[in-house]
Amino acid sequence: MTEYIIKIQSEDQIGLVYRITKIMFDNNLNVIDTTEFVDTDSKLFFMRLVVSGEIEVSDLNKSLEDELGSEVKVLIRKKNERKNVVIMVTKEIHCIGDILIRHLSDELNINICAVIGNHDNLRSFVEKFGLKYHTISHEGLSREEHEEKIQETLDSYNPDIIVLAKYMRILSEEFVNKYNEKILNIHHSFLPAFIGANPYHRAHQRGVKLIGATAHIVTKSLDEGPIITQNVEPVDHNLSIDDLILLGKDVEKIVLAKALNLIIDDRVFVNSNKTIIL
Amino acid sequence: MTEYIIKIQSEDQIGLVYRITKIMFDNNLNVIDTTEFVDTDSKLFFMRLVVSGEIEVSDLNKSLEDELGSEVKVLIRKKNERKNVVIMVTKEIHCIGDILIRHLSDELNINICAVIGNHDNLRSFVEKFGLKYHTISHEGLSREEHEEKIQETLDSYNPDIIVLAKYMRILSEEFVNKYNEKILNIHHSFLPAFIGANPYHRAHQRGVKLIGATAHIVTKSLDEGPIITQNVEPVDHNLSIDDLILLGKDVEKIVLAKALNLIIDDRVFVNSNKTIIL
Amino acid sequence: MTEYIIKIQSEDQIGLVYRITKIMFDNNLNVIDTTEFVDTDSKLFFMRLVVSGEIEVSDLNKSLEDELGSEVKVLIRKKNERKNVVIMVTKEIHCIGDILIRHLSDELNINICAVIGNHDNLRSFVEKFGLKYHTISHEGLSREEHEEKIQETLDSYNPDIIVLAKYMRILSEEFVNKYNEKILNIHHSFLPAFIGANPYHRAHQRGVKLIGATAHIVTKSLDEGPIITQNVEPVDHNLSIDDLILLGKDVEKIVLAKALNLIIDDRVFVNSNKTIIL
Amino acid sequence: MTEYIIKIQSEDQIGLVYRITKIMFDNNLNVIDTTEFVDTDSKLFFMRLVVSGEIEVSDLNKSLEDELGSEVKVLIRKKNERKNVVIMVTKEIHCIGDILIRHLSDELNINICAVIGNHDNLRSFVEKFGLKYHTISHEGLSREEHEEKIQETLDSYNPDIIVLAKYMRILSEEFVNKYNEKILNIHHSFLPAFIGANPYHRAHQRGVKLIGATAHIVTKSLDEGPIITQNVEPVDHNLSIDDLILLGKDVEKIVLAKALNLIIDDRVFVNSNKTIIL
Repeated sequence: MTEYIIKIQSEDQIGLVYRITKIMFDNNLNVIDTTEFVDTDSKLFFMRLVVSGEIEVSDLNKSLEDELGSEVKVLIRKKNERKNVVIMVTKEIHCIGDILIRHLSDELNINICAVIGNHDNLRSFVEKFGLKYHTISHEGLSREEHEEKIQETLDSYNPDIIVLAKYMRILSEEFVNKYNEKILNIHHSFLPAFIGANPYHRAHQRGVKLIGATAHIVTKSLDEGPIITQNVEPVDHNLSIDDLILLGKDVEKIVLAKALNLIIDDRVFVNSNKTIIL
Repeated sequence: MTEYIIKIQSEDQIGLVYRITKIMFDNNLNVIDTTEFVDTDSKLFFMRLVVSGEIEVSDLNKSLEDELGSEVKVLIRKKNERKNVVIMVTKEIHCIGDILIRHLSDELNINICAVIGNHDNLRSFVEKFGLKYHTISHEGLSREEHEEKIQETLDSYNPDIIVLAKYMRILSEEFVNKYNEKILNIHHSFLPAFIGANPYHRAHQRGVKLIGATAHIVTKSLDEGPIITQNVEPVDHNLSIDDLILLGKDVEKIVLAKALNLIIDDRVFVNSNKTIIL
Repeated sequence: MTEYIIKIQSEDQIGLVYRITKIMFDNNLNVIDTTEFVDTDSKLFFMRLVVSGEIEVSDLNKSLEDELGSEVKVLIRKKNERKNVVIMVTKEIHCIGDILIRHLSDELNINICAVIGNHDNLRSFVEKFGLKYHTISHEGLSREEHEEKIQETLDSYNPDIIVLAKYMRILSEEFVNKYNEKILNIHHSFLPAFIGANPYHRAHQRGVKLIGATAHIVTKSLDEGPIITQNVEPVDHNLSIDDLILLGKDVEKIVLAKALNLIIDDRVFVNSNKTIIL
Repeated sequence: MTEYIIKIQSEDQIGLVYRITKIMFDNNLNVIDTTEFVDTDSKLFFMRLVVSGEIEVSDLNKSLEDELGSEVKVLIRKKNERKNVVIMVTKEIHCIGDILIRHLSDELNINICAVIGNHDNLRSFVEKFGLKYHTISHEGLSREEHEEKIQETLDSYNPDIIVLAKYMRILSEEFVNKYNEKILNIHHSFLPAFIGANPYHRAHQRGVKLIGATAHIVTKSLDEGPIITQNVEPVDHNLSIDDLILLGKDVEKIVLAKALNLIIDDRVFVNSNKTIIL
């Protein structure tokens, strides 16, 4: 028996759960898991199903479209199909290192197609894992020129997910729009506190008693994208800025990996500037 | 429009979600929220629905029974109907104090019928809140005699939930069976660590770096009942046993209140010695 | 043997710990506990000692002054002496309720002199605990006039600590300066996120995955005072604004009580806009 | 100026802090940081100092011995001197992977001398990092024979710390005694819950709502050694045993790294079966 993950996003209507599960029943699909959420503000309906059986994805897609109307967003994936991922980095190793070690023990149901860095620092590390590393330096290039080069490389891999694993350059609105809802970023603060640069310096200066990290979908507004996961870690006056940065790395890498896993499992729905996690 | 909360527990079968939501659809009930879980080990199906519309509870019950068979456990409640609660205490104030203050600001959708204590200490406190306090001392009585007296008082209130808010006497198997799945207890440790008496002393002696509390349904096996909520708090070598006890009180009262709220909302299903929280 | 708590704040100098502990030694005082911290940025030295023995506070104070110079801030208190506390409230019960129940079981080493509310709502609750409640309404008064009335009442109690237990009016710079480092506030967000009004509404709108609360010393800049304690609680898309507010109450009351206890124990030092907790 | 870390462990006496800091003063050493703790049960005194200046370690050692007596345990280390570490593994990559990546970015002030595995699985991974990997299989050997071979290899590196990074064989009392207080282990449960084998299976079966991990010094009693760090992670009924194991890996690796860092920084004191962390 094959397992399928189905994501459905629609305007809310009476009887949606019934109509959707009826289609599963009529197609001889066994519902293993289902979660749904209705946003009463936006009147939107979100549902994630895991079903098992045998069916062509295109046929199931058609059944759902026929029943629900074509304006409904449906996404069906065989559970064992791996998503294609490209990772982008700058110089720091902790996030990509964590992902590559998870990948090595096959924790993550993905293909890592390549790693793109705007510096060369992490090349030898990444290549140890048998992965391609593309250095695309921003030096001497305008943002447009730099992003064009990145896009060329990215598009050659047709990625489902682009992970910014401490990629420290701001992306243009055009770039972000092109890869709409596909870019995952880790921000080194508990957003919306310390939006922007140097959050640990500012956290130290403010004397907070917790520091945090935020994984979010990248949208055009810097650090304003839909949040997937956040976590914090207690700190005290004994810690220097460097201590905060070091401690923050652990929060960052775990928060990023959790968010990545939620996307891999098709659990993340974007609802304007928020996420629904089913 | 009236809102209803429906709990369904059954052997797993193909098409259950479809058949259940069809009944809602046929009865003109709008499904506001639904969560379900299938325990693949025990092959049991658990579902919680919130629906709105107008229907006699007995009619909806009959529809569900007709469709699903009479061996299925169905529980339907109008959302605004309050459960009857009796609280049992010994001497400590922090848990009952927390509950009574929540009750005062109407956070909890319950009627507190009465408080039963095996000591008289908390009488004046409880009576300040306009609640009945029954002192049922265990002194000079066998366990059976003592529990018989408690049962008499309890039964006069016909409680849906019995909260042991630091009631420090062990209940007999007969007593527990009589109020099957109705008794909520707070244990002052992170179970299964430190089962039994004096957990904070033993935590101190063991030098743990976290202490915790566990709210659970009471079953005949001491501290072995299905766990609803747990939490922990970091501790260090500076803390004495008394410090641990004091710190533990905060964990206990919050964990107990969270568990109570989950029961009040009909979110807790008992699956042999575990809970399913929907 | 009497126990004394000593707080010392000074410019950093070589040999301070040695010179301070020498004074204890020379005065036949046994050092039970000592913690110190040097802020390398500001070159300030902070120390807290617990000592036991028999000495006049004024004599010990003089010894320290003679040795360290008069510009050093020294504060000595017999450990069993209780601080005087006045609590200020508006309408919400959860924070003051939590404090009063702790007080009832003598968890807090304080005298609660009185409660001041700008509304009358909490009077009957507070009076149940045998405490004085002063309603000082702001209606029809300018901020200056209102604060003047509050000061009159406050000053009649000569409080060591003023706890704003969800007192929802902004205090003037004059007021805050008058009670310098004596006012403790609970802010219903994880500062510096959501400074200002309606943090839960804004947290809901932003779709954060954690909400929090912050206890801080009040200074003239709104929500910018030195932070003592912070905590957070995970949330998800299922929670409405009202759910966040309810959940937030638990974080608020626990965070406030922890901060209050740190102040009671003379553990909090103010270092410009930060705290040192020893 | 050189920085030195000094650990002192002694029976408690009046004036110890004064006498110790006097020696620093007399030797022209500036006290940067000092923490101490007196265990009132065992009447033991523990102190950690960070001082800066210029002195021969042997001279400072002698000064302290002369003043405090030779039965006092004193340990002095230049802060920039790296400890020698040998890591022992079985098959799982997450803990050693995490350590090696931290090492690569020079987060840990250590030399990793070698990795010893009782299987060959992790050889190629470890060798990527330019480290020596010794496979010492237990197959066909008695425990004594196996441990003898391990000791031979270990001793050739003269390690200060032996990290059991998911080394899954039980060590004999002789072995443990030989490397007294030098062996750090990560146990995959929140001790003392689920001592022994298969903690995640038993956690799943018990239906706990938090899982955890414990880093501890290894002593002869299995899983009973002094605890350094612990942490937990919330779980629910949706998670299978495999999910718990996966989630647990994150807790394990972070808890182990925190404990390792505390040992590296000379912050861990063993007080019979507990730790004091200064």
